[in-house]
Amino acid sequence: MPCFSDRLAAAVRRCGNPVLVGLDPRVDLLPEGMAPQADGADLVAKAGAVSVFCLGVVDVVAPLVAAVKPQAAFFEQLGPPGMVILADVIQYAQERGLLVILDAKRNDIGSTAAAYADGILGSQGQSAWGADATTVSPYLGDDSLEPFVRVATERDAGLFVLVKTSNPGGGLFQDLVADGQPVYRHVARQVEKLAEQTAGQCGYGAVGAVVGATYPEQLQELRAEMPHAWFLVPGFGAQGATARDVAGAFDQQGLGAIVNSSRGIIFAYQREEYAAAFGASRWQEAVEAATRAMIDQLRTDTPAARLVGG
Amino acid sequence: MPCFSDRLAAAVRRCGNPVLVGLDPRVDLLPEGMAPQADGADLVAKAGAVSVFCLGVVDVVAPLVAAVKPQAAFFEQLGPPGMVILADVIQYAQERGLLVILDAKRNDIGSTAAAYADGILGSQGQSAWGADATTVSPYLGDDSLEPFVRVATERDAGLFVLVKTSNPGGGLFQDLVADGQPVYRHVARQVEKLAEQTAGQCGYGAVGAVVGATYPEQLQELRAEMPHAWFLVPGFGAQGATARDVAGAFDQQGLGAIVNSSRGIIFAYQREEYAAAFGASRWQEAVEAATRAMIDQLRTDTPAARLVGG
Repeated sequence: MPCFSDRLAAAVRRCGNPVLVGLDPRVDLLPEGMAPQADGADLVAKAGAVSVFCLGVVDVVAPLVAAVKPQAAFFEQLGPPGMVILADVIQYAQERGLLVILDAKRNDIGSTAAAYADGILGSQGQSAWGADATTVSPYLGDDSLEPFVRVATERDAGLFVLVKTSNPGGGLFQDLVADGQPVYRHVARQVEKLAEQTAGQCGYGAVGAVVGATYPEQLQELRAEMPHAWFLVPGFGAQGATARDVAGAFDQQGLGAIVNSSRGIIFAYQREEYAAAFGASRWQEAVEAATRAMIDQLRTDTPAARLVGG
Repeated sequence: MPCFSDRLAAAVRRCGNPVLVGLDPRVDLLPEGMAPQADGADLVAKAGAVSVFCLGVVDVVAPLVAAVKPQAAFFEQLGPPGMVILADVIQYAQERGLLVILDAKRNDIGSTAAAYADGILGSQGQSAWGADATTVSPYLGDDSLEPFVRVATERDAGLFVLVKTSNPGGGLFQDLVADGQPVYRHVARQVEKLAEQTAGQCGYGAVGAVVGATYPEQLQELRAEMPHAWFLVPGFGAQGATARDVAGAFDQQGLGAIVNSSRGIIFAYQREEYAAAFGASRWQEAVEAATRAMIDQLRTDTPAARLVGG
């Protein structure tokens, strides 16, 4: 199997766009009639509804985009039944040709970090969850990243390390300036080192970076700092960032970044621009419309234009 | 129900010691005859063995200590079956009077952070996993901690924020100096603010700090910096720290800190000093001996001595 970075590059080129669809299946936002009615509905019923919803999203987006990003928290919230359907959703998406990045933001040290990586990363049968890549938090330092990198490279899987996050409070510790550089630049340097060491044929490595769309200038600065790192860019749409804001995340070929939208796509039927046309009963058509709109925006206003017809 | 900090204070006083037993059930370290034999044994078989082992540890330590700390990674590694037995282990421990701190080191923002907290924290029936407290990572900043704090205080549960970790690489980002202070001191200041806001009758808050035993001087300095924060102190035993090293984590009454040992207790039957006396078949007696030895050490060389007969 090719390494994760090459598989991601191939998938983005094949689809001709860098859209990453986030699967954040909040039970309270599911289309009417799908979610269990009672407030106290048991976890199995909720997990069943979440499963139906997520597979329905996958059916729509699989022909359009390269990858999906299930958010572990919304599955864990549903307890053991949620974790069962998380494995199902991952497998279903992969069978339809999607790469799956499990957004788990795990972090620990030594054998514990290796246990997280072992469980999350690897094709079905090789690991418990079978994701192609996952997200990790860097606070515990280099010896906390190392076991994740080791397992990821052994299994041709990928990692995205939190570098500069899209939330307003992200700056509290990430922007502290030490030795003339904000903390997130120190993290970026470590990520670039690991990315370079694990670079595939596409030039990018198994280790990438999470860099928020809400900081366009830092995106550009960090693109230069981490030439071998794929960027996972959250914050598009619901968090206010536009295609122009994320343009700096790409290289000259239109590669190097995948841009995530979660609520803006999967719950598009609730957005003003789609609610009238589709409504809850035609929520899958709203998912398709929102995905196509995001693809168009990124093809118009970013170097991702060069992925197609170039 | 009293708040988490008061429940922890009461439990530590009742037991007369600050020992926290870490449940890190690595399948490859289980006593002979307990783990599934085949390398490729399925996850259900492995989870079954882990369950038997963890309940066996709980049986031994419940009469001796205040709390246990299951390490989420080793359960997640076993996929959905592992997550089923994690819920069982938490419930079993609580039924035997133990407080349960799920070591999950989660972190995210907004509704995602709230989903993690909702799933992990709360008594059985109130949340999917039903833990009394959990660990969280601070890299994402104050608006990532806030949802955890909100859910925790609503449910009389607790949090421990990573501040200064026990691993050698922990310093890479935590020790960077910004505005004259290492990053971990900036995190400590935020933790103290949240701890003070949530203080119970014992004087400590719902929000505590993870501070490694391997840095005795920083423990003392951080004790002064965070007078309202319970400390969860890893690194004792297997990572080389002694009772004397952790003395600075306590207040004058012997409260304020719980000291974790995982492998040193649960896999004590493999330690030189216990292997000859007990061996694999009497592994539970080794757990008891190691727990009692750690209690004695902490009662001899730390202010925890004042918890008993004082």
